[in-house]
Amino acid sequence: MPTHVAVDAMGGDHAPDAVVEGALRALQRPESDLQLTLYGPEDRVQAALQAHDVPANVPLAVHHAPDVIAMEDAPASAVKTKRQSSVHLGLQAHRTGQADAFISAGNTGAVMAASMFILGRISGLERPSIVSFFPTLQGDFSIVIDVGTNVDCKPAHLHQFARMGTIYARHVMQIDEPSVGLINIGEEPGKGNEQVKVAYPLLDGDDALNFIGNVEGGDLLHHAADVLICDGFMGNVLLKFGESMTTVLSTMTKQEMQRQGLSNEEQQLVAGVLGNVQKGFDHENRGGAPLIGVNGSVFIGHGRSSARAVEQGIHSVADLATRNLVPVLEDAFAAE
Amino acid sequence: MPTHVAVDAMGGDHAPDAVVEGALRALQRPESDLQLTLYGPEDRVQAALQAHDVPANVPLAVHHAPDVIAMEDAPASAVKTKRQSSVHLGLQAHRTGQADAFISAGNTGAVMAASMFILGRISGLERPSIVSFFPTLQGDFSIVIDVGTNVDCKPAHLHQFARMGTIYARHVMQIDEPSVGLINIGEEPGKGNEQVKVAYPLLDGDDALNFIGNVEGGDLLHHAADVLICDGFMGNVLLKFGESMTTVLSTMTKQEMQRQGLSNEEQQLVAGVLGNVQKGFDHENRGGAPLIGVNGSVFIGHGRSSARAVEQGIHSVADLATRNLVPVLEDAFAAE
Repeated sequence: MPTHVAVDAMGGDHAPDAVVEGALRALQRPESDLQLTLYGPEDRVQAALQAHDVPANVPLAVHHAPDVIAMEDAPASAVKTKRQSSVHLGLQAHRTGQADAFISAGNTGAVMAASMFILGRISGLERPSIVSFFPTLQGDFSIVIDVGTNVDCKPAHLHQFARMGTIYARHVMQIDEPSVGLINIGEEPGKGNEQVKVAYPLLDGDDALNFIGNVEGGDLLHHAADVLICDGFMGNVLLKFGESMTTVLSTMTKQEMQRQGLSNEEQQLVAGVLGNVQKGFDHENRGGAPLIGVNGSVFIGHGRSSARAVEQGIHSVADLATRNLVPVLEDAFAAE
Repeated sequence: MPTHVAVDAMGGDHAPDAVVEGALRALQRPESDLQLTLYGPEDRVQAALQAHDVPANVPLAVHHAPDVIAMEDAPASAVKTKRQSSVHLGLQAHRTGQADAFISAGNTGAVMAASMFILGRISGLERPSIVSFFPTLQGDFSIVIDVGTNVDCKPAHLHQFARMGTIYARHVMQIDEPSVGLINIGEEPGKGNEQVKVAYPLLDGDDALNFIGNVEGGDLLHHAADVLICDGFMGNVLLKFGESMTTVLSTMTKQEMQRQGLSNEEQQLVAGVLGNVQKGFDHENRGGAPLIGVNGSVFIGHGRSSARAVEQGIHSVADLATRNLVPVLEDAFAAE
């Protein structure tokens, strides 16, 4: 049985063109076992499809969704007033089991709010959360949770993030005993603000966690832990700061090469090395971030998603759908 | 009149050797108009001096301070129990006017606590704070306040940081109308956690500030504002994360060059470009960070300070002492 992914064709700055192209590319991958439905205004989605030679037998459908949620729409009102949007109808298809997963690169707040509203939270789990991936010197990733979903967090929320992250790392990333670190300003247990000082013993006292203690800012890229915990305010600023660093360093490098008067050949050599290093930091590698804690498999893409990012995101969310994360989370949080 | 700097000879991982060497280098600079006193156990400081040819007429004295505050000492108890430490005696010399400034690369918490205890806070200014410098794509700096001094902050504290930072930028960095930005997860005024949502109108409503609004993580290195405001928990993690990025990218670049099989000559070319880019991110450029809000001129150096960092820090704190920041801050906060 192919995995059926509902795709928000209107999500992202380059929608619907980049989404439609990404969907077609996802279906063309040799290992692909997918069935896709594109949600959006039928005329616009079909127009975008016209630009491509779509083989007749390709497992791709279009589902008409007349409402469009804009990037600048307020999430709560968009969820209430635009019930015929691609986000609503795609999520509803997922809720009723017609689709196995849903992906959107649209308005993050609206996709989150609609996911909570339509799919519902996992019982006992207070704050569904977007998981992000930080590359490490070791060539792999640490996951960071939360990165913007929950900006005001109580220590108990950080504890739940640690449990969600551990389950995600074990079941999706296949890490046996995922280590958990608490982002902090020092390594010693007593360090930090009130929030993390209270969270520390909660994490430390939970036998279900492989808690390794505090992790300082300088160690975030050294794979200090498989799962790094912070509130969404910190996580969002860190994530965007880190993404920008590679761009900034690349621009600074170009300036420096001109200052040194390097030849074109020499500049290409340097750019070739740096370009490969930067690829590790590229948000498109995974095509988006999973939203963990709702009753379903949801990926939220970057607003700037290209066709390549959409292609990758569709495969990532299809993979997530096969991991059966929801029942594991339900069991873990049932006692709350 | 030379500027007289009291120097903690026992501060930092490489003390007293690096401090003594840095002090001698600071005095040797052609433009130097300094008088220095090294505080520490006389035998150890003199032993470190023996390693150098010190000209007889150099304006350098040693003041015996038998107690030594270790990097791992708890600040509060160190301040109480080690009253004959280099930190205490150096700060006391500054308080009584014997010295114009004080610098230490030692235990940051202890130097802060002792500065508050011995020099006192500026009246009305609740939270003295360490200022940090983030390099920008424009080749200059934004200052970030706070970076670890105050981890739990009320919105009113962020407002005071903005006022302190503005005064520092105007009087020390010679920026006419320093722009102020609030570190946040989005640009719109309503964004963020409770702390910054309440702080925003305080900053926006203060006519003494050139407030330009929220600044996202991705814009911190684009000189979005001259003065960037956050609590010390966020600032400390950001600062250490940013410092580590250059090291991590440099290591990744070396790995990539080996993967690509670059010749030694080619590797040197790349390293020569990157090395110069990284210099902008080097914490030793300024030799430490000013502690603003106490009744005096205090610099706190990085624990890993080399002789070059100490040399630079001594000149930086001597420069700070000539700016007469304290009376300006006293005036500004007198009404509180």
